Amino acid sequence: MEKIKQDAKKLTIDEMAVFCKRKGFVYPNSEIYGGIAGFYDFGHLGVELKNNIKKEWWKTFVHQRDDVVGIDGSIISNPLVWKASGHAAGFSDVLVDCRKCNSRFRADTLVEDTLKIPTAGMTIGGLNAEIKEHKIKCPKCSGSLGDAKKFNLMFTTHIGPIQSDASAAYLRPETAQLIFANFRLVQENARLKLPFGIAQIGKSFRNEISPRDFLFRMREFEQMEIEYFVHPEKQDECAYIEDVIDYELNVLSAEMQKKGQKMQKMPIKECLSKKIIKTRWHAYWLAIMHKWFVDLGASSGHFRIRQHVKDELSHYALDTWDLEYEFPFGWKELQGLSNRTDFDLKQHMEHSKTDLSIFDEETKKKILPHVICEPSQGVERAFLVFMFDAYNYDKSRDNVVLKLHPRLAPIKIGIFPLVSNKAELVKKAKSVYDELKAGWTCTFDTSGSIGRRYARADESGICASVTVDFESLEDESVTIRSRDTTEQIRVKIKDLKDVLRRFMEGEKLSKLGKSVE
Amino acid sequence: MEKIKQDAKKLTIDEMAVFCKRKGFVYPNSEIYGGIAGFYDFGHLGVELKNNIKKEWWKTFVHQRDDVVGIDGSIISNPLVWKASGHAAGFSDVLVDCRKCNSRFRADTLVEDTLKIPTAGMTIGGLNAEIKEHKIKCPKCSGSLGDAKKFNLMFTTHIGPIQSDASAAYLRPETAQLIFANFRLVQENARLKLPFGIAQIGKSFRNEISPRDFLFRMREFEQMEIEYFVHPEKQDECAYIEDVIDYELNVLSAEMQKKGQKMQKMPIKECLSKKIIKTRWHAYWLAIMHKWFVDLGASSGHFRIRQHVKDELSHYALDTWDLEYEFPFGWKELQGLSNRTDFDLKQHMEHSKTDLSIFDEETKKKILPHVICEPSQGVERAFLVFMFDAYNYDKSRDNVVLKLHPRLAPIKIGIFPLVSNKAELVKKAKSVYDELKAGWTCTFDTSGSIGRRYARADESGICASVTVDFESLEDESVTIRSRDTTEQIRVKIKDLKDVLRRFMEGEKLSKLGKSVE
Repeated sequence: MEKIKQDAKKLTIDEMAVFCKRKGFVYPNSEIYGGIAGFYDFGHLGVELKNNIKKEWWKTFVHQRDDVVGIDGSIISNPLVWKASGHAAGFSDVLVDCRKCNSRFRADTLVEDTLKIPTAGMTIGGLNAEIKEHKIKCPKCSGSLGDAKKFNLMFTTHIGPIQSDASAAYLRPETAQLIFANFRLVQENARLKLPFGIAQIGKSFRNEISPRDFLFRMREFEQMEIEYFVHPEKQDECAYIEDVIDYELNVLSAEMQKKGQKMQKMPIKECLSKKIIKTRWHAYWLAIMHKWFVDLGASSGHFRIRQHVKDELSHYALDTWDLEYEFPFGWKELQGLSNRTDFDLKQHMEHSKTDLSIFDEETKKKILPHVICEPSQGVERAFLVFMFDAYNYDKSRDNVVLKLHPRLAPIKIGIFPLVSNKAELVKKAKSVYDELKAGWTCTFDTSGSIGRRYARADESGICASVTVDFESLEDESVTIRSRDTTEQIRVKIKDLKDVLRRFMEGEKLSKLGKSVE
Repeated sequence: MEKIKQDAKKLTIDEMAVFCKRKGFVYPNSEIYGGIAGFYDFGHLGVELKNNIKKEWWKTFVHQRDDVVGIDGSIISNPLVWKASGHAAGFSDVLVDCRKCNSRFRADTLVEDTLKIPTAGMTIGGLNAEIKEHKIKCPKCSGSLGDAKKFNLMFTTHIGPIQSDASAAYLRPETAQLIFANFRLVQENARLKLPFGIAQIGKSFRNEISPRDFLFRMREFEQMEIEYFVHPEKQDECAYIEDVIDYELNVLSAEMQKKGQKMQKMPIKECLSKKIIKTRWHAYWLAIMHKWFVDLGASSGHFRIRQHVKDELSHYALDTWDLEYEFPFGWKELQGLSNRTDFDLKQHMEHSKTDLSIFDEETKKKILPHVICEPSQGVERAFLVFMFDAYNYDKSRDNVVLKLHPRLAPIKIGIFPLVSNKAELVKKAKSVYDELKAGWTCTFDTSGSIGRRYARADESGICASVTVDFESLEDESVTIRSRDTTEQIRVKIKDLKDVLRRFMEGEKLSKLGKSVE
């Protein structure tokens, strides 16, 4: 398979899919049977990157915080959950049927692709009008199209041996409802006091009509989500706002969008004083979610925040800001941060006849908390961001260099004997490998020239290569090579662990040992 | 809610479920709507224990090994995968219908519960005979029962907007097939050489007619699985066998079962020489899987290995050994280790018309590897094992002490100011907390007497409690208390991290500082 000689900026999403397959990051699911649209499997490197993303997220937003705990709910729930949440009635896409060949299409995608106009927030009426006015035909058979109608996006199955309406259940389309349904038990048992968050990572399913753009719009995907609850009368009291007040964001508010303005760079302070972002909590979560990406190596400039225009809001949302990323196929939603108010808890109280309010020690009254902000994102979209941001084609090396952050890289260190036909050398290298793998994910590779092994390491995102050569047998030293700079230093084996630890924490390689060519 | 004053030995599974709910480990899914049988959610402590189990498994069997890589496949696949694997035709339970009220029951469970006899491996004919002979009636309405028939256990759904046979797809009933379907890509891209394993952790779904015993038999559960591939002509060459040759196991072979004998204690050596276990690989995996549990704190004596009798074998298995655990409701399967031969790869080659053989460098021939052993287990069953083995009711303390291994405990350290109404003390304790939480999962608790906080910590499995008292303000020392022994030592705050690290690694608390009352 040919290497794709593009930098990330110019790399298309299809080329990224090819790279991910070639290196063992992502495969189309059941490819030997022709695949199945919207489903993907993660290979031996992909599973590690995906796990590292989830681990870093959980560490940052659950373990390192005093105000957030996690849960892990099941994918299938009592269907009453989805009746209460509004998903059974309202979680749908707008579809059009071809009158001739009976194919079905997503109306917004069809209009967008045919007329090259944005359709975000367009109503059924609007979509029907566009289809009629421009006489859009079936893309498959050119037949005429019927009226656009709603189609529920939840996958349905049946529980137990009898298939009937009574046994129907849904695969969850979002993880959020598990947090609301368990709200009372979690709040009580974890002894949570407002404001607090409940976090969850897990799979969700959406029966998308047009899955597209590789990992971007899948039918089965994984979410990382926090529901952040506040006192209804203290919705703007954010104790952490000072941590981010000077933080700068690229902002595109609904106001700006309406006026056709471009995004602006603004510190949080200004967003709040100009009321572009309405609450301190929303501003805070937008900033630290953005910061999370940047701390893990993504370029700050590739992100912007964008407020939903009115018609775009979900049925539960009072205000939503998206954290967007500039993909090769345009600025796209990476994370949605909604103010869900007390909509969900209210709905579940009503439908379950269970009191979900909590007792306020101060006022001695029962209150129903508000979800002031729900930072929610797909793991696979984060995966794409880190891959695009890390992907570099290096002309002088003539190979891809995948500059993943050391905390995300699937394999941290490669250990290579210079040649593979000297038993003593291989044995020495193996002993170095055995020592290092107790602390880091490592690989041991003896196959091909050292140059080829470096190139393979670069493409797999291996942060450092450790080469054991003939001199090593005499001076108990090895060469460390940096993936990002190709810099090399010579280090005593006894100091290796300490040097590698400091290198992984961000110190420059040239400052950690004697440079060699 | 009343505390359950039982030790683990006498604790029933229902009492364990009550404890898990009370402490925030596990909740019935959508309980506010009356729940849904066979589905559970993990609370703020349960999610951490479950994640720790998965992390330890992945570390041991993927990261620390040179011969195993991981993948993460999707839950829904092209349905042809399940046709090839034999699950579409053969993955079924035997059910009986009531002729009067139309209720359906699992035939084996019904016979087992009514007649108090074991039914493992009983055929449809055998079950029908028992039902007729003993005139078993419908447990709901006492109506007469029809003939027992097969019922497929896979959950079905539909992909895309049209519901038809052509759009039907299944939720995977096992993770294994994802490994087989991706076999060629993973082997090539990860450059794997025989013998090697491919591991996976992920959810599976089985439409059980009688989900029962809390987390033991669920409809939605998580598997941890390895398919271990060997050269078809080198099926007994296990390079690692020496590591476990003296390892002792409680063995109950199919031969012993037939003769009504009890299990025996035997070293692997003897199992192999007596051909009780047929291959070295099978013996090796049985031993190290057992060892994994014991290394993480489970009592060795609660486990045995048991060979499947002939009628009990799955359609793909040549030989299967279960690792069993003595639950309060009897000896039950914890892990199944099957020899799947080349059954699956052959099936997929045939159905997909794709060559899945690999090139043997030595003989220069194409070969189809055999799965000599597939160690496969449910995460939730491991969860139950660790909970039962850790659960102790301590009479003198009058509370439960959950003695989870430090690598599994959801929260490692609790930090408590002796009293909560002295600002200076709370501040000091908070600074200790902030320092420790960078390295361990910690909790900070100021509520109630110190005795109550210790009791809460014991019940949550918190390994060590650190108490900051008035003296701490003067001598910069704190008290560390061990969950398991209630021993207490006094330690300088500057030494705290080092002492706690050594304590977590297994050193005795009394050797790490000055004992106090």
